[in-house]
Amino acid sequence: MLHNFNAGPSVLPPAVFQQASEAVLNYNNSGLSILEIGHRTPEFTAIMEEAASLVKELMQLSSDHEVLFLHGGASTQFMQVPMNLLDSKETAAYADTGVWSSKAIKEAQLFGKVDVVCTGKETNYQYIPKDFAVPNDARYFHITTNNTIFGTQWKKIPATSNVMVADMSSDIFSRMLDFSSFGLIYAGAQKNLGPAGVSLIIVNKNILGKTKRIIPTIMDYRHHIKEGSMLNTPPVFAVYVCLLTLRWLKEQGGIPEMEKRNEIKASLLYHAIDESNLFQTTVSKEDRSFMNVCFTLKDAALEKPFLEYAKNNGIIGIKGHRLSGGFRASLYNALPLESVQVLTGLMKSFEELSA
Amino acid sequence: MLHNFNAGPSVLPPAVFQQASEAVLNYNNSGLSILEIGHRTPEFTAIMEEAASLVKELMQLSSDHEVLFLHGGASTQFMQVPMNLLDSKETAAYADTGVWSSKAIKEAQLFGKVDVVCTGKETNYQYIPKDFAVPNDARYFHITTNNTIFGTQWKKIPATSNVMVADMSSDIFSRMLDFSSFGLIYAGAQKNLGPAGVSLIIVNKNILGKTKRIIPTIMDYRHHIKEGSMLNTPPVFAVYVCLLTLRWLKEQGGIPEMEKRNEIKASLLYHAIDESNLFQTTVSKEDRSFMNVCFTLKDAALEKPFLEYAKNNGIIGIKGHRLSGGFRASLYNALPLESVQVLTGLMKSFEELSA
Repeated sequence: MLHNFNAGPSVLPPAVFQQASEAVLNYNNSGLSILEIGHRTPEFTAIMEEAASLVKELMQLSSDHEVLFLHGGASTQFMQVPMNLLDSKETAAYADTGVWSSKAIKEAQLFGKVDVVCTGKETNYQYIPKDFAVPNDARYFHITTNNTIFGTQWKKIPATSNVMVADMSSDIFSRMLDFSSFGLIYAGAQKNLGPAGVSLIIVNKNILGKTKRIIPTIMDYRHHIKEGSMLNTPPVFAVYVCLLTLRWLKEQGGIPEMEKRNEIKASLLYHAIDESNLFQTTVSKEDRSFMNVCFTLKDAALEKPFLEYAKNNGIIGIKGHRLSGGFRASLYNALPLESVQVLTGLMKSFEELSA
Repeated sequence: MLHNFNAGPSVLPPAVFQQASEAVLNYNNSGLSILEIGHRTPEFTAIMEEAASLVKELMQLSSDHEVLFLHGGASTQFMQVPMNLLDSKETAAYADTGVWSSKAIKEAQLFGKVDVVCTGKETNYQYIPKDFAVPNDARYFHITTNNTIFGTQWKKIPATSNVMVADMSSDIFSRMLDFSSFGLIYAGAQKNLGPAGVSLIIVNKNILGKTKRIIPTIMDYRHHIKEGSMLNTPPVFAVYVCLLTLRWLKEQGGIPEMEKRNEIKASLLYHAIDESNLFQTTVSKEDRSFMNVCFTLKDAALEKPFLEYAKNNGIIGIKGHRLSGGFRASLYNALPLESVQVLTGLMKSFEELSA
């Protein structure tokens, strides 16, 4: 039994792997692979419609919010968001809470003015800034709700009068938020939603069409809305796997149930770290991510032996990102509690062995 | 037994479906699904490297040519090509041979001047223009080598002194060309290469970096080259299926063998149409596509009955595009000769039944 703590692409429910595997051979008893079905067929349009409709239902979205499944990852959205929302003389506000925020800021600067209203850079992004103001005239305010590399998370979405834009790539569907209060939400699928190769975009249609910029057709959200995410051939298989995961999510009890489970998993692991004499985390306590738990060994010389020990006991993907070092355990929706129990058990026994 | 003549997404080799299906459950006996493997792991970097290296080998590319697997389809390239190659005051030449050419032209016009050096529009794109000149100072000359909707194909690539750019989405790997003579080749994967959700880009690195435009990071080919198509999380599964198809292609004898088979399949079908009293094609004889065979019934009232008859006998996906009407049989690499024999047999028996 393997326990997959990968930061993304990452674990999905076993039932999703099973159904996806069958569909590659024979989709829904059609005699055809899901990979060879035309995207304009009733078979696939039903998949796309059900996926979008499940997102609306699970997130309790307002009727103003449109759901899109588009090519590319969040990195494409770093460009596509300002291209659609920001005129060259306007200002957008961004919170800088890590690597992905910084990349989003860099791309936005190509399209307009960017006001970085707060940053956690001076502490290597170990906390979420609390004390900052967003100018009223900022066209939108962009946050990265969960910072995969540094293990911090916005526990409370800041209340501003601005249009809120959020990169939720690594915590979408993990906790209930007032999703309809956002102007635009985007997320690469490869953590809580599906395989790499598709992004989910949720946009309040009322914020679109306000820039004077001429937008290339494939980058204009309005065209994708009009065509129901079928402006061009969509990433058929990736969308299908997202649908399977969304169905699983609903069966399990939806986002509130995921939130409960994620809280239990994260608390168990943070508790093990806090209790330990060997392990530690430098992430600000109130900002600890429930998705990506970053921690280190007080004695760096023990890192390699622990990684080996964990690996030999079925633990996959806990090596930390090079920018934060140490370890990172990603506890996405599909990771079972059992995997966290195995990991914390190994941390304890490693501590005993090292004593 | 089904015979899948879909125009794309379309048929892939049965062995590819089999291996892809297994990998979704357990990739290479790793105990992990291909969907949950990190893209920075040795497992996936090996996949990406082998895929790029097979493209270079099969297409006999020069060392100046770089191979990229990027998010998005050809529609993204319609924008990305001029964004990278064309300054706002420069001119690019385009041949207008159908719907996809027209879309490419429309996007290029957002980035610079476009000289449409020839068009087949006045005959509803039933032929490939022969008589035209490309200005020497055009930054590049763009053609669509195969026109999926109208069933025409450039049999001879025009010889010009300009940088050649080609959309080969629907005939890549189907015939041998002097691929190294192109400045840039792009192709959405979902015909001869793999599933929807990834594009193959082949670019001569010497043509890059010549515009003054500031290019968003994710759109700049140079960044993707530098990072080996791993600038951001790539569409892992789609790239893996491309690799499986490329391996199959090599095992079968490479592009020359595909070309031989495709010629046999296309000749068989065109011969059946030419011999028939019921069926016809209006595509100019010397420009007939070997990938997408478009034809009609002389008596339009027989269309529906023939579609029904074909469908009842296992034929999938031969309804023509709404812009060209009638029928379209796509004969991509993975479509076996047997499927064409079944189709031509049905055309003959339908004619006998209708007599």
